[in-house]
Amino acid sequence: MPGESEIIAMISARSRLRPGSGIELGIGDDAAVLRIEAEADVLFCSDLSVEGIHFRTEWAAPDLIGRKALAVTISDIAAMGGEPRFGLASLALTSGSSMDFIEQLFAGMFQLADTLGFSLVGGDTSASPGPLFIDTSAIGCCAHGRAITRKGARPGDLVFVTGELGGSALGLSLLEQGCRLNHLGPDGADRASRARQAAIRRHLVPDPRVQAGLIIGREGLATAMIDISDGLATDLGHIAEQSKAGATIHAALLPVAPSVTDLASAGTQIDAVSLALASGEEYELAFCSPPQNLDRIREFSERIQLPITRIGEITPGPGLFIDRDGQTAAINAKGFEHEI
Amino acid sequence: MPGESEIIAMISARSRLRPGSGIELGIGDDAAVLRIEAEADVLFCSDLSVEGIHFRTEWAAPDLIGRKALAVTISDIAAMGGEPRFGLASLALTSGSSMDFIEQLFAGMFQLADTLGFSLVGGDTSASPGPLFIDTSAIGCCAHGRAITRKGARPGDLVFVTGELGGSALGLSLLEQGCRLNHLGPDGADRASRARQAAIRRHLVPDPRVQAGLIIGREGLATAMIDISDGLATDLGHIAEQSKAGATIHAALLPVAPSVTDLASAGTQIDAVSLALASGEEYELAFCSPPQNLDRIREFSERIQLPITRIGEITPGPGLFIDRDGQTAAINAKGFEHEI
Repeated sequence: MPGESEIIAMISARSRLRPGSGIELGIGDDAAVLRIEAEADVLFCSDLSVEGIHFRTEWAAPDLIGRKALAVTISDIAAMGGEPRFGLASLALTSGSSMDFIEQLFAGMFQLADTLGFSLVGGDTSASPGPLFIDTSAIGCCAHGRAITRKGARPGDLVFVTGELGGSALGLSLLEQGCRLNHLGPDGADRASRARQAAIRRHLVPDPRVQAGLIIGREGLATAMIDISDGLATDLGHIAEQSKAGATIHAALLPVAPSVTDLASAGTQIDAVSLALASGEEYELAFCSPPQNLDRIREFSERIQLPITRIGEITPGPGLFIDRDGQTAAINAKGFEHEI
Repeated sequence: MPGESEIIAMISARSRLRPGSGIELGIGDDAAVLRIEAEADVLFCSDLSVEGIHFRTEWAAPDLIGRKALAVTISDIAAMGGEPRFGLASLALTSGSSMDFIEQLFAGMFQLADTLGFSLVGGDTSASPGPLFIDTSAIGCCAHGRAITRKGARPGDLVFVTGELGGSALGLSLLEQGCRLNHLGPDGADRASRARQAAIRRHLVPDPRVQAGLIIGREGLATAMIDISDGLATDLGHIAEQSKAGATIHAALLPVAPSVTDLASAGTQIDAVSLALASGEEYELAFCSPPQNLDRIREFSERIQLPITRIGEITPGPGLFIDRDGQTAAINAKGFEHEI
């Protein structure tokens, strides 16, 4: 494992201080020195990625591991309707971590950060006598009082979700079965192979919905919002619980990932609805909004070319329910349905 | 290991939202929402504590492990002359981590945080298939442009250090030899035993020099500052290098911890000067200041009842030297002296 000074030198060389980024002092001192817009609210969060729990080095190249370790924290800022600004990465590196491995890990973080105008401004490195640990923390900003929490949903609000669901859990399951990401082009394989690759990619390369979160935040389009890290059922359950309400989801409206429907139609035994409800690490946004916002939501969904689907509504509650083929069933936090 | 929701409930109950603390939203959402004074600069840093590398559970009760894991990050804010405000703690917990262990870990963090008016506002928890892993990150504030970096020292500046040095390395060495912290009162043992206990306590229970750092920052009393985590020689070396200068330390001026001198006079083979130069994890502040500030520094040292000792001066450099018994020797970053 290389020394900390080597790692800092490598990161400093890679870290670009963009004019206007608000960085007065970046990597290499006791702390970074940053400027935040006067009167902005500051959003602050962290997320841990542990080898053997959140990722396996045999499943993905180090750049994808680094990218995802940062993406999950940025997703939390997006889920508050904020602009992700500054981040730290703390890494406990195993004795087998070569400089090349570490460089790739950071390259994946920088690649994502650069795309989003987000700046890595510091962190810490240490040896690990066990697995690789990555903790990323982030500072985001939003206009004062405009952060979107989990607790503002009201009965009658519609429930929306960005993107598509189910692919991440399917990808994880495929990885556990021994499938790996390869670089077949779109015409390089049959439909089922392409679907497997899409699902694995979905699990390994999540896209935090920063642009959608920012628009929702700035335009005040949500009463409550969360990112889907534990699965729609669990995460919408958090909104319902903290809003002291309930929710009903319509199975027919769920935006199931094409990888899931393609594999199901190719003969794989998949309950697409259950998968969409339970699939974690999707990093899509689930949010609630009064019906009068429906047109504005459709309009910005088209503008940013991100599907945003109305999937249900907030009820006086309590409890989460799914309406499926005319039957209503209660769902628990893990997405399992049971008769009512 | 308890579930994350149990841990969050425990922390939320323990976390006090003090009026005026700037916390709009604390633990339990995707991110905390915070207020920072308009026009303040934001300081941002993190520090990693890994079982088997930074601490051992057989060396200290969990509250001391938690307290130190947070103290080291707060010390980085102090070293910038800032006010530590908000923190996150990300923990990867081993399967053996009981709820009682986790509660004590957080109790130690909260105890330190409460003393300093610092607020823990979130974090993350995960299982660890290996050691216990704690990453703490912190946001601090200072007046715009007043953060004290490592790179402003100028030849002719005096070099100061808060507190006393050498105790932490001595304590670590005693722990490695099998000594443990016990709770003998001051009269409960002979002088050598008391010195051993003081040294071990010094290693396990560092006090970040927040008050001193704040005064130095607000009053503009330092041209460069750092906290001593890797040892005075290494850390003053960072200041010298980043300031494109050198430094000379006078051995006779070094404030050696009484635990070190007491054990040395009781017959233990200790080179007190080398220990003071090399001892890491002291979390004292080393800073540089022009000679005209000497009286103001003495005055505030008395006022806050913290020894602040002039130990040397910045030279045109490069290189770190020690003047010992009229002989000058070069010292390398690890504190080892060699003839010049």
